[in-house]
Amino acid sequence: MTRQRILTGMRPTGPLHLGHYAGALENWLSLQNQYECYFLIADYQALGDHIDEIDRIRQSVWDVALDWLAVGLDPDVASFVIQSYVPEHAELTMYLSMLTPLNDLQRNPTLKAEMAQLEAARETLTLGFFNYPVSQIADILLPKAHLVPVGEDQVPHIEFTREIVRKFNRTYGNVFPEPRAKVGRVARLVGIDGRAKMSKSLNNAIHLSDGADVVRRKVKGMITDITGKHPRLKPTDPGIVENNPVFLYHDAFNTDSAELEDLKSRYRAGRVSDGEVKDRLVAVLNDFLDPIRERRARFEGRRKDVRDALLSGSQREKKLAEGTMRQVRDAMRVIYT
Amino acid sequence: MTRQRILTGMRPTGPLHLGHYAGALENWLSLQNQYECYFLIADYQALGDHIDEIDRIRQSVWDVALDWLAVGLDPDVASFVIQSYVPEHAELTMYLSMLTPLNDLQRNPTLKAEMAQLEAARETLTLGFFNYPVSQIADILLPKAHLVPVGEDQVPHIEFTREIVRKFNRTYGNVFPEPRAKVGRVARLVGIDGRAKMSKSLNNAIHLSDGADVVRRKVKGMITDITGKHPRLKPTDPGIVENNPVFLYHDAFNTDSAELEDLKSRYRAGRVSDGEVKDRLVAVLNDFLDPIRERRARFEGRRKDVRDALLSGSQREKKLAEGTMRQVRDAMRVIYT
Repeated sequence: MTRQRILTGMRPTGPLHLGHYAGALENWLSLQNQYECYFLIADYQALGDHIDEIDRIRQSVWDVALDWLAVGLDPDVASFVIQSYVPEHAELTMYLSMLTPLNDLQRNPTLKAEMAQLEAARETLTLGFFNYPVSQIADILLPKAHLVPVGEDQVPHIEFTREIVRKFNRTYGNVFPEPRAKVGRVARLVGIDGRAKMSKSLNNAIHLSDGADVVRRKVKGMITDITGKHPRLKPTDPGIVENNPVFLYHDAFNTDSAELEDLKSRYRAGRVSDGEVKDRLVAVLNDFLDPIRERRARFEGRRKDVRDALLSGSQREKKLAEGTMRQVRDAMRVIYT
Repeated sequence: MTRQRILTGMRPTGPLHLGHYAGALENWLSLQNQYECYFLIADYQALGDHIDEIDRIRQSVWDVALDWLAVGLDPDVASFVIQSYVPEHAELTMYLSMLTPLNDLQRNPTLKAEMAQLEAARETLTLGFFNYPVSQIADILLPKAHLVPVGEDQVPHIEFTREIVRKFNRTYGNVFPEPRAKVGRVARLVGIDGRAKMSKSLNNAIHLSDGADVVRRKVKGMITDITGKHPRLKPTDPGIVENNPVFLYHDAFNTDSAELEDLKSRYRAGRVSDGEVKDRLVAVLNDFLDPIRERRARFEGRRKDVRDALLSGSQREKKLAEGTMRQVRDAMRVIYT
């Protein structure tokens, strides 16, 4: 029996951080052994709102690949794919855009959310950005993925994808399977400043490539009370564990549950300092990051291996994509020798 | 000295008619000898609002090629190009869409005009249709055309193209020449019903492939007074020549100016019947169409030659396009072996 195929990906807009790990990479590590996985570095899409930062995007393609290798994704098992390496993405997007009513697109929840975010910069919204949801559908359909790992909030987008698939198959003939959403809990890590999302651009991220000292400095500077209403002035003040960023990080990365329970109860009772809880978090994170740093350092010295990982995965996907596009062109009766 | 390059094209949405001849093909016939011409059959674009009519579009690709050959366009001199044969069109469109502010697009005069036309069918507007102006820019830039033959009303679109070129070159490096508009008077032929535009969908066209009898029937049924205010009941009624569809056709296709002046003055003076003027037009049009029909019949029996014309032109363009995209990817530093 052939394994089911999975497509998922990231936009190359900077080095990856703990939020990427908790929200995606940890899940990918288990997926790569059960499924035929295509992990996409969506550089076309990154251009959509970073057109002037081509060097940053190109650098990020490498950074992302390096981070993936560092956390243990295996390019011999899963395919690392550079989107722009497979121009069939653009061709399929073009064909699908002909099937996509403008009205449906304007109702697309992903686009609405992203556009709202960029609303302040309305003047700089590009057509490419507007094409983004359909480009994502092409990403999924090109390797004929069966499953797309998503959070609950992304389910409508997969429904939209299925609608487009049904319309294509009905109009031109049966080419694409209907992909299904593989819904998982998407852990979202708050920033070190307590803001809802960890993000490089918010400058509140701990990167997978941060050194031990940087991690220490960032953790020691974390706030422990996002409301600002319950300042804890001394270790004997009873503390609040819920929504406390330092404890949220402990929950995500501290595997010693006995220690964690002890810390929490002492914190609530005012029997441990913020400093001690943070020191433990520094140790936990550095223990977690050490093997990642080690692998990263190893691959940093083997740039050719990173390049090979990207090229071999992209070539694997390109071959699939060529087959898919042959079927699409046949179905659409494009004259093409 | 190499010849300057020209890009122009048509959407394959039906057999061509006298309006296409007067408005474009007559001009193309002289252009093909002076310039390196790429004549595009824009089937991607035709999908934008004819998605359910794939068979009609595919048939029209052949009809258009046959009509081009029939009027005397020469595939050994000019390149006949099927847009979908060169998927680089889609790839370049994708990159250019990242440079195109949504706001500018919504101000694009071509799109505004076309959208207004389709406003009644607002529900069916597609994303592909919305991408249409940028797709046209990719058509022009892919072969690095120097000149684009347009009517006065299309000049803003060429200005928009030049803006995008400047933005691309400024952002990524000098890849594209700025194309110039080659502004000509675009003769617009009214329909046989006197409506402003001859169009298959309005059912008021005389096709290049119409037989002599069909032309006779259509001309004999033409109205001579588009206002409906000056009915000419008998040959002795003074007639109005201005904006009289029958005389507009005479102006466009009757090369015997002495005869034409005579007909006009007798018409004004009430000394010629509508029937005689129409009979002369039937003769003029059939004389004009006879060699076209002849060539058409010849090529209809040589389907392989038509196919070869399409494939050789498309391959010539594809080679150019591959070169252009190599430069684009280099400029955008896409990893691509």
